[in-house]
Amino acid sequence: MSDEILSRLAAILAERRQADPEKSYVAKLYARGLDAILKKVGEEATEVVLAAKDGEKSKIVYETADLWFHTLVMLNYCDLDHEAVLAELARRFGVSGLEEKASRQGQ
Amino acid sequence: MSDEILSRLAAILAERRQADPEKSYVAKLYARGLDAILKKVGEEATEVVLAAKDGEKSKIVYETADLWFHTLVMLNYCDLDHEAVLAELARRFGVSGLEEKASRQGQ
Amino acid sequence: MSDEILSRLAAILAERRQADPEKSYVAKLYARGLDAILKKVGEEATEVVLAAKDGEKSKIVYETADLWFHTLVMLNYCDLDHEAVLAELARRFGVSGLEEKASRQGQ
Amino acid sequence: MSDEILSRLAAILAERRQADPEKSYVAKLYARGLDAILKKVGEEATEVVLAAKDGEKSKIVYETADLWFHTLVMLNYCDLDHEAVLAELARRFGVSGLEEKASRQGQ
Repeated sequence: MSDEILSRLAAILAERRQADPEKSYVAKLYARGLDAILKKVGEEATEVVLAAKDGEKSKIVYETADLWFHTLVMLNYCDLDHEAVLAELARRFGVSGLEEKASRQGQ
Repeated sequence: MSDEILSRLAAILAERRQADPEKSYVAKLYARGLDAILKKVGEEATEVVLAAKDGEKSKIVYETADLWFHTLVMLNYCDLDHEAVLAELARRFGVSGLEEKASRQGQ
Repeated sequence: MSDEILSRLAAILAERRQADPEKSYVAKLYARGLDAILKKVGEEATEVVLAAKDGEKSKIVYETADLWFHTLVMLNYCDLDHEAVLAELARRFGVSGLEEKASRQGQ
Repeated sequence: MSDEILSRLAAILAERRQADPEKSYVAKLYARGLDAILKKVGEEATEVVLAAKDGEKSKIVYETADLWFHTLVMLNYCDLDHEAVLAELARRFGVSGLEEKASRQGQ
């Protein structure tokens, strides 16, 4: 299920990159460039921290979605995608092979 | 594939929560509490920004993995998981039904 | 000179706290509350990082002013001021007595 | 008083820049370079947010001192200083002339 969501989201982001900045938030972000995207990453990280301190679950989910979303936009802007990040996580935790072979000792 | 990775990672995090803080980085983070986890979220967001400014792809992937990883730890600490975040993203972009029904106008 | 600037700025912030949120950016920030102020602190810190990576001096000065300004608003909101922060810095570096007696060994 | 503190602190930072990285935290930061300094700026901004959410005054003062300190190190690294930042704040708020002539309308 998650695979579908992240992959479809990536497809949407790629598509929006070509869209009219006047009509799409994502297209506007791309048009404004890398710094604008990175400001959002920093901003949303702070909002995740605030939500988690408040302990409001729906807010935590909402802000984490915002943070992940803007990292996906950043990845796409840099010609990367979620697959590379998930592969890195899989490598660290050895989850492709079920057993744990964390890259850092005792991670 | 991604589904497998995030779900297995969530299972590993849940398991590590019970582990010996002396032996596991994740268990140590849980033991140090929410603020310690959130400091890492803030720290890794800054590292993503630095990596993206440098434009080094492998570093961007590495730091984004670090950021996502620490948000997964935070979610688990708050008795939440990636499913809730992905469901929120799916809802916003209507990706469950292929068509886009973004929650925010023109997102 | 700096003393004058920070002290006068503190006086202005205290005064603006009572102002009409429709007419003053500072009054609006106070009216929106602590989270709104802290979001700005997080946001401006990211902008300092971006400016420093770009190495544009005027931008670095501008964004650092924004960051300091929003921390001054936060201090005032929490019934604190710059004097307390400068006293802490003086204590750490022993600058009140010219000699260095850093609180952390070899800071 | 503040003037003395910030100016003396700037003098100390300039001096430490030449110090042995093994013996001085500041010299070590300089030796590690801009990214290391900026990571600290991002990290300390998050700690200010956490402290303010907790509402612990001594912690807020301590973390704000940490944040200002690392921005001073960053300024020095970029061949800038607190004077430039204070001059920018003075300009915005017109505090050099007592009256307010905020650069942004109604700031």
